Amino acid sequence: MSSSYGDNFRISIFGESHAAAIGVTIEGLPAGSPIDSGKLQEFLERRAPGRDAFSTSRREADAPEFLCGVKNGIATGAPITAIIRNSDMRSNDYANLANIPRPGHADYPAEVKFGGCQDRAGGGHFSGRLTAPLCIAGGIALQQIERLGVSVSARAVRIGGETDPNRMKAAIAAARDAGDSVGGVVEAEVRGLPPGIGGPMFGGLENRIAQIVFGIPAVKGIEFGEGFAVADLKGSENNDPYGVVDGKVVALTNHAGGILGGISTGAPVVFRVAFKPTPSIAKEQDSVDLEKMEPAKLVVKGRHDPCVVLRAVPCVEAAAAIAVYDAVLDRKKEM
Amino acid sequence: MSSSYGDNFRISIFGESHAAAIGVTIEGLPAGSPIDSGKLQEFLERRAPGRDAFSTSRREADAPEFLCGVKNGIATGAPITAIIRNSDMRSNDYANLANIPRPGHADYPAEVKFGGCQDRAGGGHFSGRLTAPLCIAGGIALQQIERLGVSVSARAVRIGGETDPNRMKAAIAAARDAGDSVGGVVEAEVRGLPPGIGGPMFGGLENRIAQIVFGIPAVKGIEFGEGFAVADLKGSENNDPYGVVDGKVVALTNHAGGILGGISTGAPVVFRVAFKPTPSIAKEQDSVDLEKMEPAKLVVKGRHDPCVVLRAVPCVEAAAAIAVYDAVLDRKKEM
Amino acid sequence: MSSSYGDNFRISIFGESHAAAIGVTIEGLPAGSPIDSGKLQEFLERRAPGRDAFSTSRREADAPEFLCGVKNGIATGAPITAIIRNSDMRSNDYANLANIPRPGHADYPAEVKFGGCQDRAGGGHFSGRLTAPLCIAGGIALQQIERLGVSVSARAVRIGGETDPNRMKAAIAAARDAGDSVGGVVEAEVRGLPPGIGGPMFGGLENRIAQIVFGIPAVKGIEFGEGFAVADLKGSENNDPYGVVDGKVVALTNHAGGILGGISTGAPVVFRVAFKPTPSIAKEQDSVDLEKMEPAKLVVKGRHDPCVVLRAVPCVEAAAAIAVYDAVLDRKKEM
Amino acid sequence: MSSSYGDNFRISIFGESHAAAIGVTIEGLPAGSPIDSGKLQEFLERRAPGRDAFSTSRREADAPEFLCGVKNGIATGAPITAIIRNSDMRSNDYANLANIPRPGHADYPAEVKFGGCQDRAGGGHFSGRLTAPLCIAGGIALQQIERLGVSVSARAVRIGGETDPNRMKAAIAAARDAGDSVGGVVEAEVRGLPPGIGGPMFGGLENRIAQIVFGIPAVKGIEFGEGFAVADLKGSENNDPYGVVDGKVVALTNHAGGILGGISTGAPVVFRVAFKPTPSIAKEQDSVDLEKMEPAKLVVKGRHDPCVVLRAVPCVEAAAAIAVYDAVLDRKKEM
Repeated sequence: MSSSYGDNFRISIFGESHAAAIGVTIEGLPAGSPIDSGKLQEFLERRAPGRDAFSTSRREADAPEFLCGVKNGIATGAPITAIIRNSDMRSNDYANLANIPRPGHADYPAEVKFGGCQDRAGGGHFSGRLTAPLCIAGGIALQQIERLGVSVSARAVRIGGETDPNRMKAAIAAARDAGDSVGGVVEAEVRGLPPGIGGPMFGGLENRIAQIVFGIPAVKGIEFGEGFAVADLKGSENNDPYGVVDGKVVALTNHAGGILGGISTGAPVVFRVAFKPTPSIAKEQDSVDLEKMEPAKLVVKGRHDPCVVLRAVPCVEAAAAIAVYDAVLDRKKEM
Repeated sequence: MSSSYGDNFRISIFGESHAAAIGVTIEGLPAGSPIDSGKLQEFLERRAPGRDAFSTSRREADAPEFLCGVKNGIATGAPITAIIRNSDMRSNDYANLANIPRPGHADYPAEVKFGGCQDRAGGGHFSGRLTAPLCIAGGIALQQIERLGVSVSARAVRIGGETDPNRMKAAIAAARDAGDSVGGVVEAEVRGLPPGIGGPMFGGLENRIAQIVFGIPAVKGIEFGEGFAVADLKGSENNDPYGVVDGKVVALTNHAGGILGGISTGAPVVFRVAFKPTPSIAKEQDSVDLEKMEPAKLVVKGRHDPCVVLRAVPCVEAAAAIAVYDAVLDRKKEM
Repeated sequence: MSSSYGDNFRISIFGESHAAAIGVTIEGLPAGSPIDSGKLQEFLERRAPGRDAFSTSRREADAPEFLCGVKNGIATGAPITAIIRNSDMRSNDYANLANIPRPGHADYPAEVKFGGCQDRAGGGHFSGRLTAPLCIAGGIALQQIERLGVSVSARAVRIGGETDPNRMKAAIAAARDAGDSVGGVVEAEVRGLPPGIGGPMFGGLENRIAQIVFGIPAVKGIEFGEGFAVADLKGSENNDPYGVVDGKVVALTNHAGGILGGISTGAPVVFRVAFKPTPSIAKEQDSVDLEKMEPAKLVVKGRHDPCVVLRAVPCVEAAAAIAVYDAVLDRKKEM
Repeated sequence: MSSSYGDNFRISIFGESHAAAIGVTIEGLPAGSPIDSGKLQEFLERRAPGRDAFSTSRREADAPEFLCGVKNGIATGAPITAIIRNSDMRSNDYANLANIPRPGHADYPAEVKFGGCQDRAGGGHFSGRLTAPLCIAGGIALQQIERLGVSVSARAVRIGGETDPNRMKAAIAAARDAGDSVGGVVEAEVRGLPPGIGGPMFGGLENRIAQIVFGIPAVKGIEFGEGFAVADLKGSENNDPYGVVDGKVVALTNHAGGILGGISTGAPVVFRVAFKPTPSIAKEQDSVDLEKMEPAKLVVKGRHDPCVVLRAVPCVEAAAAIAVYDAVLDRKKEM
């Protein structure tokens, strides 16, 4: 189903931006797994809005309420459901969007798919807000794999054409001041993953990571290791030779991004994700009044990020952790 | 499961390069669907080896035998299984690979995952040869969506750093002569897809296409529409304004690559796929003798393509057709 | 996953008897589907405890709160999540159960499976209370199929060895007075289902219905049409001859219970479900102290039904409606 | 999908009675698992037709050809596909069935579902012959669980109203002589399964076993432990008290059939399956000519078993082994 992911660590995300709540149900977390709620909250706050000068001014605590599946900080083995109540909603901001789809948003295709019954307010189920439950599940997955010695870290490596952190911030500020927005690239690295995780064909690490990462709004591309640069490389340049280090087989370079044949090599899994500039911009745009079926000018009101890339960093970590942990659980069946 | 894909048009690929056969089982093709075997064969031949000067000289007819599920050219509604017998195998070419994993290949991670029980000959289940059954299923999916007015076409847009077709061929030839290989990029376009196909989060068109495309060997990246270039664009540049054309809502530009919120907009779905240079090269490479756990020099023998990009073109079309048709069937449940 | 069911109308049940809440997430209800909350509430009340002299005296409103996916009584197309807060919990009743598993309950195998981390109070995720979210999803599925002209009705046909309704009640009362419990059989009938729904092998109507019905606690058997009585019938007695009635093909008898080859024949789908006597009885029973690993006498305290059969009737209807609606959605893909 | 089963040991059955071949693909058998082909063949021969006086005189070797996934008797970790070529087909026997559906068979609902495109000959994908690939997968699963100390055995306990083996045979012979058929009941027992296998709700052992068992043609009911007899028992009679035997918790009786809350208790898993009398009988029957839409008399020609129960015994074992092994693999993820 469209809002569910995973074969073994199965997450099912629900909620709409302006509904009563958003949340996630997790099946497959082994009974007895500890959940450190303080650490989870810290992780969630990295994603939360209103933390810096650049992100939307909507503020929500994003403190999940665990309805079931956790007792005294320990997974009971039953499904875990955590919700976050929505508050601080300004549905009026969206009044003029009812008939005029926002360019670059899901509005128009959603209108066709759901026949106008979708909850338009705040983007409904398409809202970036739905990355909060993704991060709840991801934060739990992170704690699981960390106990196995696997870490995940991501960072913005390009924003608005800039690669220097200070210049990135300046680009965001400039876009905000211009009523515009900028996109960027997040790079993630998974360290400590042993070789042998993943599988051939459609169950490979690349397939699994790509499938979940495109579930983060605004993602338009993903590449592993050298990525698109492989198009300009020779096999003799791109192949990673093996050596013996400390009695172990080690890839001496890592053009492959830690994955061959869909399976981890033991080298860090490295991938980059392209985020488009936030489609909600203050500038007037051309659209269509769907009722009158005639051209219409649109000015998007409300609070919007001029750039989602910084807040997307923990989302990419969450997605990677879920995909990797799901693959790790798969591996257990073989042993 | 790792070698299966799809929720509605479900393909399950089996086989190993040097086993008795390779093949595919398809569940979910509606009874009564015609299968034009001549057209299918034409499609398969675009992928088949030995068709030009650049690809491996191994020649196989790649003519599938349909074991069941098709009668008089019509799908019966039962699962369809088609196989291709392997022949012209030279397993001896792989004798020296038993203990020395080829850099850039799945050999080493597969060794770890399968504990040495995997069929190493010819790459086993990881072989590019397994794209033949993918193309059987994809060729059938193509025929299905064509009847709905949807077409898929792909082409190589970059090989060995070159974008001009003649220069691409020269780059391949040069790599071959140097005992080396080159990578490239394939661009695909799906035209005629109505708006409303796909879904939010993990069931989006991007997720589905990415999941299957990374099942083609050597793929290291995928991007939709502007792709990674969005990192350098502003929202006002990247958003596609809507207009009314012939009484229909139309995106006037297509930076989104025909997908917003995971759902088709009605504009062509456009994506690009990065293929790494074939890891099998004639040049001597550094590897490890896994038995002795000491460094070893490796020279890969056998017949290998200096570039898989040209043969990958129909594979990308097949993958796109399967993903799109699977999503089209999903849409039927909503109506 | 264990607490999820369905390919097209996908339900995912969560919660534990004494956790903060129980609930269900539904994916796959087409956008625009109306949900009549009054009718749903009426349906849920048929299952609710405390409605008659025989059932447990624990009373809960069982009024679901819809967190998302429904707006103004219409499905938005996004996942629907409904929860019921737990209240009126008396966890102390379960204090002495921590180390002494109740015979006939999931306690001991759950202890092994979940390593003692499961929530024991009230049966945790194994509680009969979890049939409330099943009935929420089932009530919605019922409304969907009713609009297609399909109805589902079930009734108790045997309790405590009795088939007469008055005698059934007497048997329950006698069991209650004796600190004991009784089992029974529920028969369900699905009318109005057109022929052609279901499929061969593992996707047949019998497979689908059986898979969900065994998810209702205390179920130990299911049979379709003549069921186990077929063991004593001849083919000439059991085969249902066809005739033409009002221009339609009609099975003139219905020994098959409306299903042949896993597919509906157009005749009513008829099945019976065996419910064991409630394992929670007041009588002293032999068990084991798991900590001391020595025999222990157990007296189960708390409020318990002497018979779950009457309250199980709407649960069977809910299960049947979900299974049938899921199969109906499958059929849409073929047309 | 309808012809696939299992989450971890995934089987996908294909073929039609009179197509070129039938077969099965298995995903999820861990690399390195030995497959004893002699033992597998012995198992398959227990199901094969033409072995005794009572079964159909069609004889087929039923010797599977393994196309891939097995090398030198060891699973390689890639999907395993085994096929059996069809031979000895007499399609003419089915010529008069084209327009007149056989009572008690899938003919009519299949005609509706597949719009007349299904392969009618020999029952197509609904043929009992498709239990051969089920037994290939089941025979492999049996070998896997046997190495874990788990055994599966089934036997006919009732045929044609008789429970004595000699009288059962007489009942079959009498039915055959009368151009009729008889049904029966098969009882299966799974011994050696440790406690803790299975899960709550829809992933319970009962759900899993029921889902696959109804995939065997002619099954109309399944019950676990006391089964339908629970309707006449009191809780104090049906509950299985626990004791300590050899330092282990043991259920002192086994009314539950080894399953509580969907999870194994450590006691033998016991279930019974009802098989209807073979619908193909020599006696003239009432049906309908679907083309003329008028009543028609039908006489089924061809070779048919007067009773499928004896040949179904290994099929029930195969189904049980697959379901149990799939659940055993699930358990590995939790540990």
